[in-house]
Amino acid sequence: MMPEIGRRRWAIAEGYIPSESSFDDPALVSHETACILNAGDREARVEITLYFADRDSAGPYRVRVPPRRTLHLRFNDLEDPEPVPRDTDYASVIEADVPIVVQHSRLDSRKSEVALLTTMAYSES
Amino acid sequence: MMPEIGRRRWAIAEGYIPSESSFDDPALVSHETACILNAGDREARVEITLYFADRDSAGPYRVRVPPRRTLHLRFNDLEDPEPVPRDTDYASVIEADVPIVVQHSRLDSRKSEVALLTTMAYSES
Amino acid sequence: MMPEIGRRRWAIAEGYIPSESSFDDPALVSHETACILNAGDREARVEITLYFADRDSAGPYRVRVPPRRTLHLRFNDLEDPEPVPRDTDYASVIEADVPIVVQHSRLDSRKSEVALLTTMAYSES
Amino acid sequence: MMPEIGRRRWAIAEGYIPSESSFDDPALVSHETACILNAGDREARVEITLYFADRDSAGPYRVRVPPRRTLHLRFNDLEDPEPVPRDTDYASVIEADVPIVVQHSRLDSRKSEVALLTTMAYSES
Repeated sequence: MMPEIGRRRWAIAEGYIPSESSFDDPALVSHETACILNAGDREARVEITLYFADRDSAGPYRVRVPPRRTLHLRFNDLEDPEPVPRDTDYASVIEADVPIVVQHSRLDSRKSEVALLTTMAYSES
Repeated sequence: MMPEIGRRRWAIAEGYIPSESSFDDPALVSHETACILNAGDREARVEITLYFADRDSAGPYRVRVPPRRTLHLRFNDLEDPEPVPRDTDYASVIEADVPIVVQHSRLDSRKSEVALLTTMAYSES
Repeated sequence: MMPEIGRRRWAIAEGYIPSESSFDDPALVSHETACILNAGDREARVEITLYFADRDSAGPYRVRVPPRRTLHLRFNDLEDPEPVPRDTDYASVIEADVPIVVQHSRLDSRKSEVALLTTMAYSES
Repeated sequence: MMPEIGRRRWAIAEGYIPSESSFDDPALVSHETACILNAGDREARVEITLYFADRDSAGPYRVRVPPRRTLHLRFNDLEDPEPVPRDTDYASVIEADVPIVVQHSRLDSRKSEVALLTTMAYSES
């Protein structure tokens, strides 16, 4: 049995939360997500740092993912140490103390239909 | 000749099947797919485990992919040991006894146009 | 100077060409593309094999990519040894005699708006 | 502390800037972006070369990304040594003198809704 899978250091170079949405349903509000999978038997302590074009980085934001659980973390919901600015280019580095898998996705509902994008993040062991 | 390609352990951190669809055509119903390619000469026995935010994992779901075939497996169709809940965040680990390639995609037709996303899954040998 | 970049074996597990399109403009007809970059100084001889769910594989399809050129190859245009069936799940393995980079994309215009997906293909050296 | 993450050589095989857009808002004009993250402590000097189907390559285009910053570079804005042709297939190689992370995305607004795609670029150390 080998439940752990993944790596400890991940990066997402694309980041942008539109301030506009065509819908009130939380599932359809424009949002960006870091989907984090912790398939192992130990809790993952995760730190997220945000990088911008013309100001200092923000963070670390700290979250925990229990063993054998996934956390689909909305960047929209990050508040501590500061909220993520809307309509602003950013990037992120995500580091954990155990192997995790990180996938990036965005739902954009600025117009009356939704647009989606996703990619596996870049990883290093 | 070297027909095999791929790895034995794959993970998809993003997972979400919308319960709503704007169309009845099965091709256009909201769905999530794990596209599995077995380019080798041996049958692939594949086990899928699903991870959630706040409950224990589900599975393993078992499928077989014949040699030199592809299986575009809809998570919507998984029934044994239990169906995949709709409108629920999940993640998956996909393991095979021979090298395979796994790509994740979703068609979302909650609104009257379709939105698509895809990414190659994360892999380890 | 080190212009070559890439690997010799690539796989795309997802493949599906919708038979329907809402537009006649060739740029907006539903299509699937393997974008191939040959950044090196030698011509790339490329062979593509297609895999299906319930029939034998097709190919090899043969194309050449000149040195320092890109070829955005539409699967829709493959004719020899046989056309790619529409509305049919398939997967592909792409092999070259020099390093190349392969990215998969689809434009789906079954409805009156376009949907897009892309991913870097899976690669082995 | 180990702030650097990434690799020095990246490639994006897909490239296409639609000349049409349904909106004047710069955020919604059809565009292609190379999102570059420089999480390290040294400025990144980046060179971009573009490859085409039937003409010689263009570039290098030169940009700098300050330490601990991200640059979401629109291919639409590249002017020196020459602008990027619209409605034309291209590919790109992105090289830096320090480790960076590169993600490719496109917003397509030829129709009245937006379509999005993204993928992590292919990398070599």
